[in-house]
Amino acid sequence: MNILVTGGAGFIGSHLCDELITQGHKVVVVDNLILGRKENIAHLFSNPHFRFVQGDILDMPFFDAVFANTAFDCVFHLAANSDIQKGGNDPIVDYQLTFSTTFNVLQCMRKYQVKQLVFSSTSALYGETSDLLTENYGPLQPVSNYGAAKLASEAYISAFSANYGIQTWITRFPNVVGERFTHGVIYDFIKKLKKNPNELEVLGNGEQIKPYVYAKDLVSGILFVWENSHERFNVYNLGVSSRTKVKEIAQMVIRELKLNAKIVYTGGERGWVGDVPEFKYDLSKIHQLGWSAKYTSNEAVRLAIQKAIEYNKNGYPTI
Amino acid sequence: MNILVTGGAGFIGSHLCDELITQGHKVVVVDNLILGRKENIAHLFSNPHFRFVQGDILDMPFFDAVFANTAFDCVFHLAANSDIQKGGNDPIVDYQLTFSTTFNVLQCMRKYQVKQLVFSSTSALYGETSDLLTENYGPLQPVSNYGAAKLASEAYISAFSANYGIQTWITRFPNVVGERFTHGVIYDFIKKLKKNPNELEVLGNGEQIKPYVYAKDLVSGILFVWENSHERFNVYNLGVSSRTKVKEIAQMVIRELKLNAKIVYTGGERGWVGDVPEFKYDLSKIHQLGWSAKYTSNEAVRLAIQKAIEYNKNGYPTI
Repeated sequence: MNILVTGGAGFIGSHLCDELITQGHKVVVVDNLILGRKENIAHLFSNPHFRFVQGDILDMPFFDAVFANTAFDCVFHLAANSDIQKGGNDPIVDYQLTFSTTFNVLQCMRKYQVKQLVFSSTSALYGETSDLLTENYGPLQPVSNYGAAKLASEAYISAFSANYGIQTWITRFPNVVGERFTHGVIYDFIKKLKKNPNELEVLGNGEQIKPYVYAKDLVSGILFVWENSHERFNVYNLGVSSRTKVKEIAQMVIRELKLNAKIVYTGGERGWVGDVPEFKYDLSKIHQLGWSAKYTSNEAVRLAIQKAIEYNKNGYPTI
Repeated sequence: MNILVTGGAGFIGSHLCDELITQGHKVVVVDNLILGRKENIAHLFSNPHFRFVQGDILDMPFFDAVFANTAFDCVFHLAANSDIQKGGNDPIVDYQLTFSTTFNVLQCMRKYQVKQLVFSSTSALYGETSDLLTENYGPLQPVSNYGAAKLASEAYISAFSANYGIQTWITRFPNVVGERFTHGVIYDFIKKLKKNPNELEVLGNGEQIKPYVYAKDLVSGILFVWENSHERFNVYNLGVSSRTKVKEIAQMVIRELKLNAKIVYTGGERGWVGDVPEFKYDLSKIHQLGWSAKYTSNEAVRLAIQKAIEYNKNGYPTI
């Protein structure tokens, strides 16, 4: 298949490209390299089935030309602002990078009659509730601008899918960790400890508990859903059943770095504007389809820390 | 209270202004007059509590200045593309007029710390399902671009409400009819009969059945919700329990116009791209709050036809 991966030089996108190329697909990546990194996909440059196009999806003449040049069978749309905290400080970030990019993808798919869309969505669109979060859960009241932008994206995907014949696979996932990450709690902790190896400041009270899924695990789940569900509009929660507390992550990072830092909590149950301190994620639909994550949340966190450290053997990782 | 009504020169907005002025509020209307009409609010121009500002919400410097000039206590955000069919033909219409306007309203409210938002939403965000549509219904899979843009708006309102302290009242309503309408099935039928009094073409098979609420009824419901529900985030379905078939509307229009036209159906269960042929709307929440519509769906339709005809006694109405 001819496949377009938006955000393909990013954290999750680059792992996805690895897998799609392994499966024998022809992959074109569009990435503006704001969050994505050339190094994440550099090892694919010599592959004749792989092509990287640097540019911005919000630049419609550029993006339209990408579709004009290649007859895609499927689009994996991963381009987005993935830094939820940043989006909380300035709502325009997610509006443009997360929502408007989706709209432009849809407009091009409609124009060039691309008939398959695989979209990376998020558990953040469920908002803050102690209810069990199934795919059919309502009401959907996101508390982060990121969650709002992803729900806004899903809303438009739903309408385009219904009206313009685009078969759709949406996977909603929680925190993802692993090599090539660009932000997030592990990233922050390592960065802070690099600055001050004696003390680690943790936002909130450290009791926030969330599931963390390993990036390569996640990618296998996305592809499993794409290959094995056949409705016009397929929505799946993806993730791990287990969860990890922020204070456990802090301890693991300190341990893996072989430090003896003191943990200091800023207090409060929320790390930052839009943070969701706890949620219950129902995975029975994806489990029934036949997929489950290989690594637990704790294993994923530990693996991500180790991979980050591995990236720079000569001291702290390049964060 | 100092109140901003966006889209206040429009069909529903102008009825809302009438009521807010009657209640003693100070009202500023912003309307670009694309769908709104000066004539709808001309009778309010002499009122010292009323001010009309012509301009576009998408023009941020203009819109920001409106907020800088008046310290609003509350915003009623009604500005939107209300022509669902038009939005089905070109997705950019609802993206800009329905969604981006909401985003700009939220950005200004955040900047100028306006603490109350009343938002006009739609039953179209529920999508196409035979399930009973309660306010907590999920999944939300709109099939029209209009429904998508309203869901996208609600998503952002949810996040802004949670993060920036904006108390919110959302009312979701189905088809609205009454004087000052600018489009819709009654409008279309009268227009067609003006062109050809002998034949009326009906899109679809005429069996589409929907609730129609009378505009002044709806406005009383919006204000009732605003005054009587006190959560940070209040969501209510608004409407009538009864429903009317499109073929009945066709018959009523012909009868009220005292014509003898033949009805011709184009066939198919859907009138146009994004049309939802049938839905079941749960109103128990608003009824429990203490409000219900004065007119049934059939009464609302008949009243709307009569008011339209009344507008031009000398023949067909000015449609």
